[in-house]
Amino acid sequence: MNPHRKLVLDKITEILAATPDDYEDRLTKMIDAADQVFVGGQGRSGLVTKFFVMRLMHAGYKAFALGETVTPAIRAGDLFIVISGSGETGSLITNAKKAKEIGAKVVLITAKSSSTIGDIADEVLQIGTDSSYQKVFGLPMGTMFELSALIFLEAQISHVIHEKNIPEEEMRSRHAVLE
Amino acid sequence: MNPHRKLVLDKITEILAATPDDYEDRLTKMIDAADQVFVGGQGRSGLVTKFFVMRLMHAGYKAFALGETVTPAIRAGDLFIVISGSGETGSLITNAKKAKEIGAKVVLITAKSSSTIGDIADEVLQIGTDSSYQKVFGLPMGTMFELSALIFLEAQISHVIHEKNIPEEEMRSRHAVLE
Amino acid sequence: MNPHRKLVLDKITEILAATPDDYEDRLTKMIDAADQVFVGGQGRSGLVTKFFVMRLMHAGYKAFALGETVTPAIRAGDLFIVISGSGETGSLITNAKKAKEIGAKVVLITAKSSSTIGDIADEVLQIGTDSSYQKVFGLPMGTMFELSALIFLEAQISHVIHEKNIPEEEMRSRHAVLE
Amino acid sequence: MNPHRKLVLDKITEILAATPDDYEDRLTKMIDAADQVFVGGQGRSGLVTKFFVMRLMHAGYKAFALGETVTPAIRAGDLFIVISGSGETGSLITNAKKAKEIGAKVVLITAKSSSTIGDIADEVLQIGTDSSYQKVFGLPMGTMFELSALIFLEAQISHVIHEKNIPEEEMRSRHAVLE
Repeated sequence: MNPHRKLVLDKITEILAATPDDYEDRLTKMIDAADQVFVGGQGRSGLVTKFFVMRLMHAGYKAFALGETVTPAIRAGDLFIVISGSGETGSLITNAKKAKEIGAKVVLITAKSSSTIGDIADEVLQIGTDSSYQKVFGLPMGTMFELSALIFLEAQISHVIHEKNIPEEEMRSRHAVLE
Repeated sequence: MNPHRKLVLDKITEILAATPDDYEDRLTKMIDAADQVFVGGQGRSGLVTKFFVMRLMHAGYKAFALGETVTPAIRAGDLFIVISGSGETGSLITNAKKAKEIGAKVVLITAKSSSTIGDIADEVLQIGTDSSYQKVFGLPMGTMFELSALIFLEAQISHVIHEKNIPEEEMRSRHAVLE
Repeated sequence: MNPHRKLVLDKITEILAATPDDYEDRLTKMIDAADQVFVGGQGRSGLVTKFFVMRLMHAGYKAFALGETVTPAIRAGDLFIVISGSGETGSLITNAKKAKEIGAKVVLITAKSSSTIGDIADEVLQIGTDSSYQKVFGLPMGTMFELSALIFLEAQISHVIHEKNIPEEEMRSRHAVLE
Repeated sequence: MNPHRKLVLDKITEILAATPDDYEDRLTKMIDAADQVFVGGQGRSGLVTKFFVMRLMHAGYKAFALGETVTPAIRAGDLFIVISGSGETGSLITNAKKAKEIGAKVVLITAKSSSTIGDIADEVLQIGTDSSYQKVFGLPMGTMFELSALIFLEAQISHVIHEKNIPEEEMRSRHAVLE
């Protein structure tokens, strides 16, 4: 295989192998317990957010990405999933505090074992360990975390599909028809 | 008043004065008859779309802007509102055809009395008349249509608020809390 | 004219009549003095941001809306235009502070004579006066500010076009061709 | 490793192992030969687009995602990269034709060996082979293509970084500072 593809895939594989195997099960329970699910991230983590929210919607959940036109008010009983490698993104700190005050649950998906948002959150799902993210030339800035978080969340969708036995046709029927 | 502000406001006022006064009432009936409302536009008309969809959501409607993460499949019984000055935007032609095939209603908000999307649509709401859009230096490209369509749709929201007597506090309670 | 359209237009007209006439000239000088222009707002003020940035790009400026994919780093010598009715939007306070630290200029477009971002900014352009924004049934939440700020910024574009005598054809040649 | 993570990673690995190893080199030559690079996709392929464009910008290219505020006109000498699993996305067919007419190059990244956009494009980079995309329960709709295309494009960035020896610090200096 092309060495750059191998570099990317090996790193994601190493990080996800170092990530507790029960996260998909725990996150499913949190999502199922919530009335509505809000997911927020900045920059490329914001794109990860949208990858995940679209599939949650296809799977039948009431899910929203922060900052979109129809994203409603969060309420007590909802879940706010924060995607932040550092756990220190300014606007997400503010949002996590607001969500807690309102009575929503907050879960942080992050690269760090300890952070400001981690202290606010009800649950912290650390992807890999603190030593997973040594600099690798060719995988600049947050690349390793963003891709690992994305693949974890795709696995999360697979977990939900298998657990609830959701036919692809049912998901497809919810998919946007208008481009 | 600053002459540039006057230029913009005078032109919008002229166009909206030349627009049939019953449009807000007609559009309200179409929206109320629909299960879900989809709104689509390209470029700055796409921004007009989002201005409107957010307030529809605040007013309690199930409304979606095309192209956002949680926008679901359109179905028979839904309404597709197209915002297109020319009525000839390529992707919106395709979308209007799909919406009709599925059994949704299509309404076009446009600057032109006749167009491809106009021929597909169940209803055409022409903003102003064909002679409203002579070139004005300082209001380039689609400016006159985009702003007039926006103010018409803000008036549409005011119409809905008055007709249904929706308290501002109720709308505010649906507004996004997380930034 | 339909009374709801009149309600919206009269309110915008009243607010812009109460707004100093030299703002377009002052803002043009700030934009012309900057290497790059960044514009940020939340919610519907974020849509106003994009209306304005697209026309700045058409007019030949290096302009960016916050949060988009290709928005680069702000640097000393750049201008950050904040659109915030309250002047208290959390993430924009953080951004305004960062911009100042880096050595960029900050200008606030707002509904309030005094605010946290106003205290940080080099210039405050208050749209209307503190008494302009009494509640009006039918114009919920930030509607009056958002529309008045938008029309002011469209007038700003008209000012720039007239001052620099920019042909529409030149602006159109920069407009996106791919939908 | 959690079986769902393994399912996702094994499938991507299988697809990228079946993808010609010289694609990164070929795509680099196309990007380097272009004045400006435009990248377009719909739905989750649109998110892949933005992942890639942001890193191209960090690496010093003039790159744009379709549909964003500051995306300018495409011109002769530019490159249009289309990301479409089916190669049949309606608006992207229209865009690919426009780009060719203007004299830009078009390259398609796709799951199919043959398609409408493939017929228009100067180059087709098929990710995997036609037999790579058998249905897998848990990886609904376009998941396999979207993730494989994304990892390929991250490898593409690694290739560019290594070939041009771009320091991470240089990329970071271009990264957005304002959230």
